[in-house]
Amino acid sequence: MKLSDLQTPCLILDKTRLARNCSRMSARAAELGVALRPHMKTGKSAEIAKLATAGQPGGVTVSTLAEAEYLFEHGFPDILYAVCIPPSKLDRAAALTAKGADLKILIDSLEAAEAIAAHPGRHSVMIEVDCGEHRTGVDHDKALLLEIALILADAERATLAGVMTHAGHSYRGRTPDDMRAVAATERDSAVAAAEALRAEGLACPIVSVGSTPTALYADHLEGVTEMRPGVYTLGDLFQAGIGSHGIEDIASSVVASVISHNRGRGTLMLDAGGIALSKDRSTEALGESGDMGFGLLADLETGTPLDGLTIRGTHQEHGEVAVGDPALYDKLPIGAKVRVLPNHVCMTVAAYEGYEVFAEGSDEIVAHWKRRNGW
Amino acid sequence: MKLSDLQTPCLILDKTRLARNCSRMSARAAELGVALRPHMKTGKSAEIAKLATAGQPGGVTVSTLAEAEYLFEHGFPDILYAVCIPPSKLDRAAALTAKGADLKILIDSLEAAEAIAAHPGRHSVMIEVDCGEHRTGVDHDKALLLEIALILADAERATLAGVMTHAGHSYRGRTPDDMRAVAATERDSAVAAAEALRAEGLACPIVSVGSTPTALYADHLEGVTEMRPGVYTLGDLFQAGIGSHGIEDIASSVVASVISHNRGRGTLMLDAGGIALSKDRSTEALGESGDMGFGLLADLETGTPLDGLTIRGTHQEHGEVAVGDPALYDKLPIGAKVRVLPNHVCMTVAAYEGYEVFAEGSDEIVAHWKRRNGW
Repeated sequence: MKLSDLQTPCLILDKTRLARNCSRMSARAAELGVALRPHMKTGKSAEIAKLATAGQPGGVTVSTLAEAEYLFEHGFPDILYAVCIPPSKLDRAAALTAKGADLKILIDSLEAAEAIAAHPGRHSVMIEVDCGEHRTGVDHDKALLLEIALILADAERATLAGVMTHAGHSYRGRTPDDMRAVAATERDSAVAAAEALRAEGLACPIVSVGSTPTALYADHLEGVTEMRPGVYTLGDLFQAGIGSHGIEDIASSVVASVISHNRGRGTLMLDAGGIALSKDRSTEALGESGDMGFGLLADLETGTPLDGLTIRGTHQEHGEVAVGDPALYDKLPIGAKVRVLPNHVCMTVAAYEGYEVFAEGSDEIVAHWKRRNGW
Repeated sequence: MKLSDLQTPCLILDKTRLARNCSRMSARAAELGVALRPHMKTGKSAEIAKLATAGQPGGVTVSTLAEAEYLFEHGFPDILYAVCIPPSKLDRAAALTAKGADLKILIDSLEAAEAIAAHPGRHSVMIEVDCGEHRTGVDHDKALLLEIALILADAERATLAGVMTHAGHSYRGRTPDDMRAVAATERDSAVAAAEALRAEGLACPIVSVGSTPTALYADHLEGVTEMRPGVYTLGDLFQAGIGSHGIEDIASSVVASVISHNRGRGTLMLDAGGIALSKDRSTEALGESGDMGFGLLADLETGTPLDGLTIRGTHQEHGEVAVGDPALYDKLPIGAKVRVLPNHVCMTVAAYEGYEVFAEGSDEIVAHWKRRNGW
């Protein structure tokens, strides 16, 4: 099977680029003197986890319990489930721990701490610290952090494993200086939280930070033990837009076919729409020159962008491309296949049950790697 | 299993509301004197197809060949694949026809007509007509329509089955008068295209129109043989916003848990984010009063909206809710479960492999209905 034989829309993965992205981040973690606990929310594949943890202690980060269960079954026992857990999921978490997983769950409230203390299962627990994104997490300098930690310290079957924070607001940075500043706040918040716990005599072995931009731009990570970037594995147009990597590092994309021409209106239509690409519009935040609509068209064989063509609108199964130069209709006849590079790869790949895998420079599909979607 | 036992996020379906929505549209088709060929791009489930085709000739519409193959296997042989087909999919379409399906494929170009004429398989073909949405389709009054039809008429193994059009721009209408005008154009374009073919001595048995708003608002459908609405089956906030149905008719929603409170910032977080809800923002087009963010919170048991609370932002696995009244934190403690009504249901349900089914007024899960996602 070749790239050009794939039924469209279809998700493809360049394993050469993936391996290069993984090596680069591993080297970066070594340079910073921290462990890399790659976030599998992007790839959701055991094969990708193997490449991302090569040369690392082997721990992974997940965004769902389904990912945790799947990765445990595939030989990854050290798992951080990095979304605050509600009490109704404790049974399932404890079942995984009972099977032998070193699962760390996350909380940011007294209510969750009390539910864990009252739960019959064993739990290793991290406390989430907010370093400025204002998504979830407690402030490192407020009493709540210690109150949560003390409930866990008193609990018979719970262990305080550490603190973690996520500088998701690094995605709002536009210059290396912006990123460095966010990375410094991320590091300082996590380290200060760990120190606050240690000052009360509590152990805080793990100090975990991470996002792809802050991993790349941090001046140093003194006091931090691990970082958890994820999107770097596959890469996307938004990360390329903010300088995390180049367009040529984007490892995963959607193959689509031209299904309609309208020369009168200056458009053509692909068979990849809102489901195949997702409705994510991350690159809109990059301004007119950086806005890639719902994805950037690229050559099927080489992955090189095609004349700046982007998907400017989607229907459920249609992606509309504005065609400036009429010569492009001959270059992209009905039935022609292209790659569409994703705006935000985590959202785009979520629509597929797996990846068709090939090596850079080859058009041969050499493997199918399954994803673990759902919850 | 009860609604409150479901792991979150999870997709639920009220089968009472679904059946009511289906009966209503069936009655509407009878009133208009046309067949109802429900679009299964929304439900993608054989169980939903059974309810939607009850009392109807039994034909269905699909948006992918995967849906076509799945529905054929589940006893629905009469299928219209309502997305223009590229030549690379003709083998798969012909294989389904060879198995006994009455599959109708769709084209809007000479290139696709020529590919069909040259293909070794048998094909029943519809020509798409553009009635003003400007997505795909030929103009009913231009020569291209007849040129395509004549290639098919000359082809040995192809049959011209009819014409179809889709007034997707009915979604831009805001008043009954807007909808009636779009419905009239949709009907007139399709009928005019059929008449143009018949004037040349070509048979055009099927004249197909359809969108949920135009199905509901059309004055009459004289000359039309069938309509293809789809989103009415499950309903959503956008359709409720433009008056296609009430909020209380929305049959499918996402169950989510409260995972974090931040009283200082006036927010709470659910475990349903961009993947669980989709990044669709259809209701943004309805203006400030109609904008439901990424979904509207509703009571888990009754489905009644909760104090106008909406998801105002998403991360991959987090949905952020702005909490005006601090008393709501007690009403929605950590671990509380709610329904989130979808902005655009076709996009939201696409993230799930199936529906947990219950009856209105009961909290008992009585079935799991699978969806056929993918391509």
